[in-house]
Amino acid sequence: MKKLVLISIACSTAVLAVGILIGHFGISSGPSWVSDVARDVDEHFIVKFMLEVNNVQIQENLKVLTKVPHLASTAGDEQAVQFILKRWQDPENGLDQAWKEDYVVYLSFPDRSNPNKVTVVSPSDTVLHTVREREKAYTPDQDDPDVVQPYAAYSPAGHPKGKLVYANQGTPTDYEQLNRTVDLRGTIAITRYGGAGRADKAINAAPYGVAGVLVYTDPLDINDGLMSDASETYPHSWYLPPSGVERGSYKNQYGDPLTPYLAAKEETYRIPPENIPGIPPIPIQPIGFEDAYILICELGGEAALAEWQGAFNCSYNYGGPGFKPTSAFHGSDVKLDIFNHGKLESSSNVMGVIRGSVEPDRYVIYGNHRDSWVYGAVDPSSGTAVMMEVSRVLGMMVKKGKWRPRRSIIFGSWGAEEFGLIGSAEYTEQYFTKLSERTVAYINVDIAVFANATFKASGMPSLQSVIFKAAKQVDAPGLESTSVYDNWIRYSKRVSPAHGTIPKMGYLTGAGSDYAAFVHYLGITSLDMAYTYDKNKTNARIYPAYHTAYDTFDYASRFIDPGLVCHQAIARTSGNILVRLADSLVLPLNSSDYAETLESYLNTAVNLYQHQLQTRNISIEPLKRAVAAFRRASARLDRVILDSDLANETPLKVRRINDQLMLLDRAFLDPLAFPDKHAFRHLIWASSNAGHPTFPGLADAYVDAESSGQSSDWDKVHRHLSVLSQAIDGAASTLADVI
Amino acid sequence: MKKLVLISIACSTAVLAVGILIGHFGISSGPSWVSDVARDVDEHFIVKFMLEVNNVQIQENLKVLTKVPHLASTAGDEQAVQFILKRWQDPENGLDQAWKEDYVVYLSFPDRSNPNKVTVVSPSDTVLHTVREREKAYTPDQDDPDVVQPYAAYSPAGHPKGKLVYANQGTPTDYEQLNRTVDLRGTIAITRYGGAGRADKAINAAPYGVAGVLVYTDPLDINDGLMSDASETYPHSWYLPPSGVERGSYKNQYGDPLTPYLAAKEETYRIPPENIPGIPPIPIQPIGFEDAYILICELGGEAALAEWQGAFNCSYNYGGPGFKPTSAFHGSDVKLDIFNHGKLESSSNVMGVIRGSVEPDRYVIYGNHRDSWVYGAVDPSSGTAVMMEVSRVLGMMVKKGKWRPRRSIIFGSWGAEEFGLIGSAEYTEQYFTKLSERTVAYINVDIAVFANATFKASGMPSLQSVIFKAAKQVDAPGLESTSVYDNWIRYSKRVSPAHGTIPKMGYLTGAGSDYAAFVHYLGITSLDMAYTYDKNKTNARIYPAYHTAYDTFDYASRFIDPGLVCHQAIARTSGNILVRLADSLVLPLNSSDYAETLESYLNTAVNLYQHQLQTRNISIEPLKRAVAAFRRASARLDRVILDSDLANETPLKVRRINDQLMLLDRAFLDPLAFPDKHAFRHLIWASSNAGHPTFPGLADAYVDAESSGQSSDWDKVHRHLSVLSQAIDGAASTLADVI
Repeated sequence: MKKLVLISIACSTAVLAVGILIGHFGISSGPSWVSDVARDVDEHFIVKFMLEVNNVQIQENLKVLTKVPHLASTAGDEQAVQFILKRWQDPENGLDQAWKEDYVVYLSFPDRSNPNKVTVVSPSDTVLHTVREREKAYTPDQDDPDVVQPYAAYSPAGHPKGKLVYANQGTPTDYEQLNRTVDLRGTIAITRYGGAGRADKAINAAPYGVAGVLVYTDPLDINDGLMSDASETYPHSWYLPPSGVERGSYKNQYGDPLTPYLAAKEETYRIPPENIPGIPPIPIQPIGFEDAYILICELGGEAALAEWQGAFNCSYNYGGPGFKPTSAFHGSDVKLDIFNHGKLESSSNVMGVIRGSVEPDRYVIYGNHRDSWVYGAVDPSSGTAVMMEVSRVLGMMVKKGKWRPRRSIIFGSWGAEEFGLIGSAEYTEQYFTKLSERTVAYINVDIAVFANATFKASGMPSLQSVIFKAAKQVDAPGLESTSVYDNWIRYSKRVSPAHGTIPKMGYLTGAGSDYAAFVHYLGITSLDMAYTYDKNKTNARIYPAYHTAYDTFDYASRFIDPGLVCHQAIARTSGNILVRLADSLVLPLNSSDYAETLESYLNTAVNLYQHQLQTRNISIEPLKRAVAAFRRASARLDRVILDSDLANETPLKVRRINDQLMLLDRAFLDPLAFPDKHAFRHLIWASSNAGHPTFPGLADAYVDAESSGQSSDWDKVHRHLSVLSQAIDGAASTLADVI
Repeated sequence: MKKLVLISIACSTAVLAVGILIGHFGISSGPSWVSDVARDVDEHFIVKFMLEVNNVQIQENLKVLTKVPHLASTAGDEQAVQFILKRWQDPENGLDQAWKEDYVVYLSFPDRSNPNKVTVVSPSDTVLHTVREREKAYTPDQDDPDVVQPYAAYSPAGHPKGKLVYANQGTPTDYEQLNRTVDLRGTIAITRYGGAGRADKAINAAPYGVAGVLVYTDPLDINDGLMSDASETYPHSWYLPPSGVERGSYKNQYGDPLTPYLAAKEETYRIPPENIPGIPPIPIQPIGFEDAYILICELGGEAALAEWQGAFNCSYNYGGPGFKPTSAFHGSDVKLDIFNHGKLESSSNVMGVIRGSVEPDRYVIYGNHRDSWVYGAVDPSSGTAVMMEVSRVLGMMVKKGKWRPRRSIIFGSWGAEEFGLIGSAEYTEQYFTKLSERTVAYINVDIAVFANATFKASGMPSLQSVIFKAAKQVDAPGLESTSVYDNWIRYSKRVSPAHGTIPKMGYLTGAGSDYAAFVHYLGITSLDMAYTYDKNKTNARIYPAYHTAYDTFDYASRFIDPGLVCHQAIARTSGNILVRLADSLVLPLNSSDYAETLESYLNTAVNLYQHQLQTRNISIEPLKRAVAAFRRASARLDRVILDSDLANETPLKVRRINDQLMLLDRAFLDPLAFPDKHAFRHLIWASSNAGHPTFPGLADAYVDAESSGQSSDWDKVHRHLSVLSQAIDGAASTLADVI
């Protein structure tokens, strides 16, 4: 009996122990959300995502998107709006929600019933030559009546007539040089694309009394010199046919021009159109090189500088002004008849969201514009086709219940980008506070594939590591066991003090695509990426059919990316990055990589400016101390992340670190730093004219002071140095221990 | 045997069940932080805190703080710095950390060896009367050589001499009125305090050719008419003795005047002192009413308007200009000899922190300035004595391990407030990003006790509920079973659509104390509070010894708050609010109460402006829609909070809601909305001249447009309406569902 009791006790004890163990470990302990909030990115999911991304789907997207011209606010644009909306609202593989948001924006169009004309007119008023009004159609689909005539958006209407001169790229120094030889008053200047902004070619000309401006693309700059449409150019190659014309927005500020800093809603205050800054004060019109050849080769006057010569087989002369005595055009004027008009039109952004499971109030935004100048197969539909594929795969995973991101994902199809990034700018104006408080990052994929040689990326240095990680996981199209990363580093590399030889990323210092408002106005960590050229094989300043009627599905799928495999690589890479930003427990943003850029900027500034600043009694030491403080703080934050067992600590600690990383770029904003630059507020990435890889405001102020020598200009240098040092110090203090 | 087996099984099952239960519930389940992150404010702790707050301790603090004059940057100020530092670094009841931060700021002082003089000078250059240079000392402690001579900080030096005129309060209409009767060129204007800002009395005068200005406090405005120092005024009552002079900063912009938007560090860029905006263009000097009486009662010319008459037993005449024929001063000039000079001085903020346990990256800031004009018993040491007591009690609790707040608490003792809120402004400039990202609220307790009648509070409407909650828990000093709340509502009430009759809170629309930079520059939800007057018992525009040498410990402890029981009530109320803001699981901020204010502002705007705006084709509908959207969004957020079991949900949901509440005021910031107002960015609380309880920028723009009638001014109204509507819409979208 004793034995039995002992056995019973032993058994009971064992059973109790088993019970305790089951109770403690078997039944999920703690609230159910504990494991949710600690979950990190799922590498298997990323592999699955990438496998699912399909080039045939992308090709189908591209076909639909490029069927008709879809200039902003036209019927073709609305068709694209509906296509995207329908896809994002699809119950099988759409997103959680999708809708469109409309803005009433000021666009500029030629007059369909009164097309713009450029003519050579003899002294007796005979028209000796008329510039082609539409590009030559090589295939029937190009004959769509909705192909907009080549024009310069926001050029004023007008009918200037005058002797022709050749003004190279229309930069300030070009006109200055030309003015030494020729009296420019009342002339028409012909300029080639490149060197200066579109509008600037007219803005720079006006002070000299130039009456009108023509712009064309020289075969030297776009076609590696090739000119013949019989064999050399599209449809025989990717090169621009002689009648091809680059359209564009001739407006320097981004966003709707009538509602600066305000979302362009029906009743919003609008400035009078005559007060729009940064648009051509005189008529300007783009033409094809076929016609430019006829005009330039007949010009009189001295031969222009060697650097001004293009690919035509004639001497580029300044112009007498006007044509040379031996020309049939001798004594004739060139006349522009421009009928452009501004118009308030409704333009839509299409928005689609996947709600985050754990942190719905954190946004990763992925966007591209939708509008194009004509068919826009490359610009922007390559990016849109990619975005639709990324959203299809992620939407499908969500709808199947297989995945939901930790953070919210917002897709944006922006309207009216071609007129100056209007849709994205209005979006950031309308939701300024919400977006700046909650956005982790913005991924812009506009032209996804310029060419099929190599990946390229531009963005904040803090994104470098996640871009590299993704690029290493994607196969480079057409190459045996080579990653996008391995291929990239062959084309473009640099030596990093921290990482050794790595691919070289670009910076988003301009306003070239819809990232501008996110970077410069909101201070959101942003990224732009594409597949691009082998610069050893072409000197083209951009893919040759850019902004012409030849940027078609046929062009893209035959010459840019046969099989759309580069499109697929961009979808995989950008989607990989998107998922990492949305799902990682700790945001994959690295502040130490930011420090490396600041240090490199500082070195340049010290080398270029320190000596002269010392003689002016302006100390650069506060800037040095600020950059050093930033480096220390970023190293500290790295260590905290490394030393913490974040999956097992309070989710508020992870959130704290993530907020430090997410908000880092916001610390560099100063709404008063660049009073002359609309919506440029980011002290590190603002545009600059100084041409040095350093702090833009400092560089520009320094150049101004050095050229004027005025002490008030040196005061501005000193002031900006203080503004900059304080911002970097402030950024450092956001990375330091929080209290 | 069978039975035994059955019993064994039954027992085992029971034992197993017990085990499972022990295992599941007995051993703390889930990570240890789960309960920490869900903990709400501890009501017992708040009661304990309030009991511990001790009026004798506050009295001791006040004694130490007022022993010597502590004008900014002087030895007395440094003594106070060290006192506060030592207390906050005390191992027994100090804070986690304390330190000081220095700024090099531009102050203005009289010349010790060459005191400012005001004299009546006869035509033959005989000095007929000299205005008293220092206040009369009634007790030996007032004879401290460090008592600064009465002066107008930032008045230029100079020696203007001219005929005296009386210009009432020195408002633009006062000078306009006076100029109708008298040629003001070359005159000296005597003005009384009130009606216009200090600097404005000189700024408004200069265009009329006035050469110098005197300022005094009329017994009507400060002493309820009483004038005699033999019996009526201090040391016999709280009223101002005849020789008392209100000193002050005569500078309109807040912050260090040489470093706008920049923290004033050693090497920071400074504007030239001659470019400081908003300071007197001509010399100005404050004097006592004893001397003002002698001057004003001798003035010639017509009797001034009835509203211009003060408490002197004579007619206030405009001045001939100059003295009346029957006066001994007839024909004489008044001469100012002002020797003020600007000086860069080091000024410190003393900072002390208690690190938050759960959300250290969320700050509740409690602050007051430390510098005074002379002894500053009421202004600011009443507030500092209270802050030191609040920090002592909380510090002690922390040091004893009995408490640690959920969020971090930051105490700030600001420097150089009297010169224009300099220390707090420099702090917000230096840490702009960090503070705007993380600060839950700022509590300002400057003058803690103006008088002992009733509590008053001003701040954002979202704080109303937590202020009420605290005020209900504190006993009103000197009243049987009456709470601070119950007493308050007797003195000042309003009817709220949502809450019925409640105490009336004020708004922080000006820059009267250190909340200015937090409210207007950073957009941080802020609060200012004090015990104050029974307006039925006195018309004094402020407590009579304000900014004079009589603001002493003796004055404060005998006439303002005997026993310092009102100080104690303020310490309890402000500390109660502080702890609730720091410890509550859900932040005690209510967006619906904000909606009520916006609706009331909207009603006023519609009543005053809608009709006229319609005739101008400016629609006020976007503003109506925005306010309605804000109301809907705030109601939704209230419901979410009410319907959620937040203590048992993921801490990231609580954080999400708290971020919505914390950042609400940030949505109202627009750095470009008020280009003419330095560091005013808050669209709802900016200062306004229009005098209507409505949106300040709209009201000012409307008044301008109505008076000028210019269409460009109506455009500005329209533009501001769009800016405002967009901001309120944006705020609503931050309160709405996050995605």
